[in-house]
Amino acid sequence: MGARETVEVTGHLMDSGILSRVLDDIREYGGDFVIEEFDVGHEAHDPSSARITVEAPDDESLQRLLMRLQTRGVNQLSHPDAAVATSDQDGVLPDGFYATTNLETRVRLGGRWYDVQNPEMDCGLVVEESTVDDRHVRTVPMSDVARGMRIVVGAAGIQVTVPSADPAEAISTFGTDHGLERPQAVLVRQVADGMRQARADGKRLLWVAGPGVVHAGGVPAMVALVRAGWVDVLFAGNAVAALDIETALYGPSPDSSSPPGHEHGHEHRVRAVNTIRKAGSIERAVRKGVLASGMMHALVTEGRRFVLVGSVRDDGPLPEVHTDTVEGQRAMRDEIRGIGYCLMMATQLYAVATGSLLPASVPLVCVDIDPAVVTRLADRGTGQGRGIVTDVGLFLEQLALELVADYRRG
Amino acid sequence: MGARETVEVTGHLMDSGILSRVLDDIREYGGDFVIEEFDVGHEAHDPSSARITVEAPDDESLQRLLMRLQTRGVNQLSHPDAAVATSDQDGVLPDGFYATTNLETRVRLGGRWYDVQNPEMDCGLVVEESTVDDRHVRTVPMSDVARGMRIVVGAAGIQVTVPSADPAEAISTFGTDHGLERPQAVLVRQVADGMRQARADGKRLLWVAGPGVVHAGGVPAMVALVRAGWVDVLFAGNAVAALDIETALYGPSPDSSSPPGHEHGHEHRVRAVNTIRKAGSIERAVRKGVLASGMMHALVTEGRRFVLVGSVRDDGPLPEVHTDTVEGQRAMRDEIRGIGYCLMMATQLYAVATGSLLPASVPLVCVDIDPAVVTRLADRGTGQGRGIVTDVGLFLEQLALELVADYRRG
Amino acid sequence: MGARETVEVTGHLMDSGILSRVLDDIREYGGDFVIEEFDVGHEAHDPSSARITVEAPDDESLQRLLMRLQTRGVNQLSHPDAAVATSDQDGVLPDGFYATTNLETRVRLGGRWYDVQNPEMDCGLVVEESTVDDRHVRTVPMSDVARGMRIVVGAAGIQVTVPSADPAEAISTFGTDHGLERPQAVLVRQVADGMRQARADGKRLLWVAGPGVVHAGGVPAMVALVRAGWVDVLFAGNAVAALDIETALYGPSPDSSSPPGHEHGHEHRVRAVNTIRKAGSIERAVRKGVLASGMMHALVTEGRRFVLVGSVRDDGPLPEVHTDTVEGQRAMRDEIRGIGYCLMMATQLYAVATGSLLPASVPLVCVDIDPAVVTRLADRGTGQGRGIVTDVGLFLEQLALELVADYRRG
Amino acid sequence: MGARETVEVTGHLMDSGILSRVLDDIREYGGDFVIEEFDVGHEAHDPSSARITVEAPDDESLQRLLMRLQTRGVNQLSHPDAAVATSDQDGVLPDGFYATTNLETRVRLGGRWYDVQNPEMDCGLVVEESTVDDRHVRTVPMSDVARGMRIVVGAAGIQVTVPSADPAEAISTFGTDHGLERPQAVLVRQVADGMRQARADGKRLLWVAGPGVVHAGGVPAMVALVRAGWVDVLFAGNAVAALDIETALYGPSPDSSSPPGHEHGHEHRVRAVNTIRKAGSIERAVRKGVLASGMMHALVTEGRRFVLVGSVRDDGPLPEVHTDTVEGQRAMRDEIRGIGYCLMMATQLYAVATGSLLPASVPLVCVDIDPAVVTRLADRGTGQGRGIVTDVGLFLEQLALELVADYRRG
Repeated sequence: MGARETVEVTGHLMDSGILSRVLDDIREYGGDFVIEEFDVGHEAHDPSSARITVEAPDDESLQRLLMRLQTRGVNQLSHPDAAVATSDQDGVLPDGFYATTNLETRVRLGGRWYDVQNPEMDCGLVVEESTVDDRHVRTVPMSDVARGMRIVVGAAGIQVTVPSADPAEAISTFGTDHGLERPQAVLVRQVADGMRQARADGKRLLWVAGPGVVHAGGVPAMVALVRAGWVDVLFAGNAVAALDIETALYGPSPDSSSPPGHEHGHEHRVRAVNTIRKAGSIERAVRKGVLASGMMHALVTEGRRFVLVGSVRDDGPLPEVHTDTVEGQRAMRDEIRGIGYCLMMATQLYAVATGSLLPASVPLVCVDIDPAVVTRLADRGTGQGRGIVTDVGLFLEQLALELVADYRRG
Repeated sequence: MGARETVEVTGHLMDSGILSRVLDDIREYGGDFVIEEFDVGHEAHDPSSARITVEAPDDESLQRLLMRLQTRGVNQLSHPDAAVATSDQDGVLPDGFYATTNLETRVRLGGRWYDVQNPEMDCGLVVEESTVDDRHVRTVPMSDVARGMRIVVGAAGIQVTVPSADPAEAISTFGTDHGLERPQAVLVRQVADGMRQARADGKRLLWVAGPGVVHAGGVPAMVALVRAGWVDVLFAGNAVAALDIETALYGPSPDSSSPPGHEHGHEHRVRAVNTIRKAGSIERAVRKGVLASGMMHALVTEGRRFVLVGSVRDDGPLPEVHTDTVEGQRAMRDEIRGIGYCLMMATQLYAVATGSLLPASVPLVCVDIDPAVVTRLADRGTGQGRGIVTDVGLFLEQLALELVADYRRG
Repeated sequence: MGARETVEVTGHLMDSGILSRVLDDIREYGGDFVIEEFDVGHEAHDPSSARITVEAPDDESLQRLLMRLQTRGVNQLSHPDAAVATSDQDGVLPDGFYATTNLETRVRLGGRWYDVQNPEMDCGLVVEESTVDDRHVRTVPMSDVARGMRIVVGAAGIQVTVPSADPAEAISTFGTDHGLERPQAVLVRQVADGMRQARADGKRLLWVAGPGVVHAGGVPAMVALVRAGWVDVLFAGNAVAALDIETALYGPSPDSSSPPGHEHGHEHRVRAVNTIRKAGSIERAVRKGVLASGMMHALVTEGRRFVLVGSVRDDGPLPEVHTDTVEGQRAMRDEIRGIGYCLMMATQLYAVATGSLLPASVPLVCVDIDPAVVTRLADRGTGQGRGIVTDVGLFLEQLALELVADYRRG
Repeated sequence: MGARETVEVTGHLMDSGILSRVLDDIREYGGDFVIEEFDVGHEAHDPSSARITVEAPDDESLQRLLMRLQTRGVNQLSHPDAAVATSDQDGVLPDGFYATTNLETRVRLGGRWYDVQNPEMDCGLVVEESTVDDRHVRTVPMSDVARGMRIVVGAAGIQVTVPSADPAEAISTFGTDHGLERPQAVLVRQVADGMRQARADGKRLLWVAGPGVVHAGGVPAMVALVRAGWVDVLFAGNAVAALDIETALYGPSPDSSSPPGHEHGHEHRVRAVNTIRKAGSIERAVRKGVLASGMMHALVTEGRRFVLVGSVRDDGPLPEVHTDTVEGQRAMRDEIRGIGYCLMMATQLYAVATGSLLPASVPLVCVDIDPAVVTRLADRGTGQGRGIVTDVGLFLEQLALELVADYRRG
């Protein structure tokens, strides 16, 4: 083996299983390691730290392994300046580009550390400077790379910080199916507390929702939460907005216990979408009185934000939907700033997309009745995620009871 | 083809899909048919009726096909006396025995109709008489057959009655996954109404529960429901009782949000079971103050009934557990009389067992977070079953709020 | 009630449960009905037919109900000309537009029937004519509507034909979970037979695939099937193509039993995508030798077609990906002609999208390990769909053994 | 805190996540700890070891915590003699009894170590001696405790040994859902290799099967495996045996693609069971020619063993079924000796029961299409378990192709 580097990692290494994953990573990248030093905290809650010398067949492999390890919060001991290369093609990062995590990250340039302004997963790092004193580093998604951009390559000179978490929390929620077996009432309260805390900190609340929210009868609770100010911005697809609007326009089924909007088939759906397209937009449909109830209506009347992004299966779509998914991602990115809590309800696709954009420091909770969805979301990086396997309709009902003073059941 | 018989069936034949299943049955049994007459009601809710001549290769096949069709509520037009054969071996029914449904059934003997006293699925029918005037017919499970019993054979002279149901109800709940998509709050109210109705009719309320009730944090709600009189009898296995007792004895985990009793492993479980065995029984453990809280404690202090039946995976088991499953079934059978509503919570095994014992006329609701369990339970016969795919913990919480005046959340 | 119309429906009405759904539809749309005539076939496999007079509160409701019923293959008895209105806004259908099914459809204009050229679900019908003799009718998706187009409104003058299917087939596969319990080997053979038949008929074979195909180890079988000519066109998202390419570029994990490409995290993924973007396209990457194996490689070297459509969660995306979902749908539409069999593997999103575009006459099979996905796909209209709940990797392995003469296991 | 003890643990502590679980255990039992020494191996595959001083509020708590830690392979440093108490009640263990793991265990008595003869989970340890030189220690299930037995209490003087495992193996299979994403063909080969190895070592092969084996079309493959000598003993319930026999007696459904035995309903089932009861036993039914095919037939004709244990939902049951579950467990225990490999197919109940009885040193593989079942089985102790989420029918098909020379597909 030729290339080697010494790295260190600190935290609840064993509790969180991080060290085990680090060693797996090294093996999977064909590397080898020697543990130089290992300091387990003495007391129950002490953090531990390890210093490990990592080897790889060549420098390129080593750099990629080091980047991989940074997704676990593992940093290099040495602090050289980061290397930078210039992009020579729009939409393409230079070879050997540093692939970002969504952790708090800083980059060493000219002997100084620069904080990365908007941590996001799976991006490049672009160095921008008018003068040396006005230098800054930010993430750039591949599709936004412009020729001539100066991009960080290799893993040298980059440090990440893993948010401090209650490790017991993280373990017992994800990585096993324990989420299946928790007293759900307690979890509802914890989510409400997290939302209150974010609000108290002056942060915004982000929701991501799938059609299951409407199917499970969650609209009345969502409307109450929107009206009471517990929803700042919603990320969703055409499907949930169209289903919500269809239900608002054509009413629930005569038999109140049957799924609203479902048995009607697509005829109601496409007609509802056409109605909104005719009005020009969801917002105009609300202003004109065409759309008078439901979740989208509440968002508009309360002046809350929403970003709808298209998918291949959309009918219509609704006018506000970003049919270009790259544009849609940009619109979501614009709403990420200041988010202090994120709730993902009954959606896998939009939840995964949002999870990549969100800094790891934002607590997020993912609620779904399907354990596979909850588990898959937890697999994305060193997330602060908490998964709850439960009924979305009853969960929202309980959350509204918790957060909205005069909310009445049913 | 040699043997033929004309049958008739009445009801919401198309709405409920019964006719389609009847024709499938005939094909599967290698038979053929001619539809002699088909009367669809004119108006939306009119029942329809059909008269069908059924053929089979020989009389034995025909008799078995006719029995099969009776599980759909299809009766023969002709009314001869039923044939009876004498069992010549303990625990074995005579060849060609009539295999029962759990529908209301009557048998023609000596030109008179006799109601079957305790409809149960997959049994034989035994004719008992001291005098001709004191003749009665009851179901007998295979294992309770005694040599010399007079058992009905063939399908002649037997009529069944399918309980009248709101067909739309049945269809939209089972047979598709619509249960997934119903507003759960409405369903909770409907279940509460069903329970109130049964109570108003002077009927008893039967619960069937699996360990998921404890895991999902449903014990406080269950205790409140027991204390408020909404549980007359519980059918369960060793596992849920042991888990409930373990939680009561060793307390919930320090971290209140982790699953009580789970992470402790089996050590707590077996110690809890041993403690009850030492006391002699659950009931004595309650009387002695050894067991002072939880669901089993509430059942004992409120004087409610419970039947625990063993399984191959039991630790211990607890003293009240029927380790012999045939004995256990008998004990369950003894508690079936007078049941007016049945709730099945987070259990497949005990729910299926109970479903076979219950007459079809008893409404039952099956709640589980796993759609596969709910669907499987719906496949048992012409049940009055309603399946709800939701979180059992939150469901019980909402049900207690609905039924127990002073119930406080969490 | 004011408006009424007499309709008729023919087919295996009871076997297939269609009549029951028709009556449900009428109730859900607030209508009423009288069954004027009902002719059940006498013999086991005879089709039945019904004539029903349908009522609705007003003509608009009636027209919508009639459209709804056409999704079940229910046509009106009367044959007036279809009504046509002119669109006055790009991307918006006129009020009361006829919402299409994907059934074979014909429209009556000037006393003559015109076949709809490209049946597709949830579209409008545009009437185009240079002269009266050169008139034709085709479907138009909402987003392709141009101002001035002449669009069919209401349900009058439209007839649909449900493809004749083996009803027993359809019932036993969908609507219950029986798919779970079928001998899978038999199903593999039936799928292979369907593919051979389509090929013999000169039709093309369409595949729709999700990342699960790669995760489950299905790539070698897919490559063999592509090389042997059993894949004409593939619909997929960025994820499966990127995962396939990542695995091709960075090799399977050293431990051959671990999931290729998964534990590497996103670093490998984004680097793989960047490499292809640098080459300009997947096709160029293959020509340049940058990409030398895998499913996408096989498609390119064998000259097969693929359509990749973006989603909100894409990294990159790959150059061939249609980032605009409406454009992507158009590209898929262009490949639909001549399809004679469709296989959907481990994807819900792209399968649903494809199902809407495909005429109902194209047989399709949907394979997934998750029963919920299989069931959901079956809910789309009067599909010819067959769902198989099984392991996609083993299914492809068996299918390759069946179809590719020299295919070697493992 | 009063009581304390120093313990040590050796192995792939971080890779396997054991240390993290150990620290969780201590917290959950209300204890505290100081890590005295921690030796991480230097090289990638070196084992690590830790010495930890554990504290608990009192000695009783400490003893129970120490027992709990032994389920993780954590032993005490000090080696006093084990304490022994005498049982004063049949079926009840003395207070403070040592609750066993299924690990290789030895007990110190009179200054010497005694190997526990039959490691089994959740039992007591009984010390038996005719003379001091003829002392031995074996596990005793609670229900087999007899008054006067000398039972080990507390955790002192007991050492366990965790079987050495390839830690990467264990991690990548369980604890995450990676099993979902493995190339299944590779897994089939690994299972076949494990079976060949066990056979080469002169060990017996144990199978545990649920009805899903029959539903998924696995009977032909099972029969081939039985005939070729790859099944020594089968553990199952009444349901799978009855379903296999029903299919053998009444033939598969005319439509070969429908689930054998399912759509027939219970009538076929109970008649099949009655037929076997009439013959006296499955074995006699085979000898008499009444039962001439299927899995149970193959077991009988090849002279293989089977243990059937009852459950509350059984019809009949079949004569060989142990209706008493405690007796059934004893019968299973009698067959455990000499088992070298265990395959669990499509059953949760019987798999969990078997997992408790099997020593941890026996490799076991659990195959099910439901990921929840696979995950739950992995939660039982420090198992050598490997979970495979796949289609049982196709898995058996592939396994038969691998192991049975002339096996023909389909």
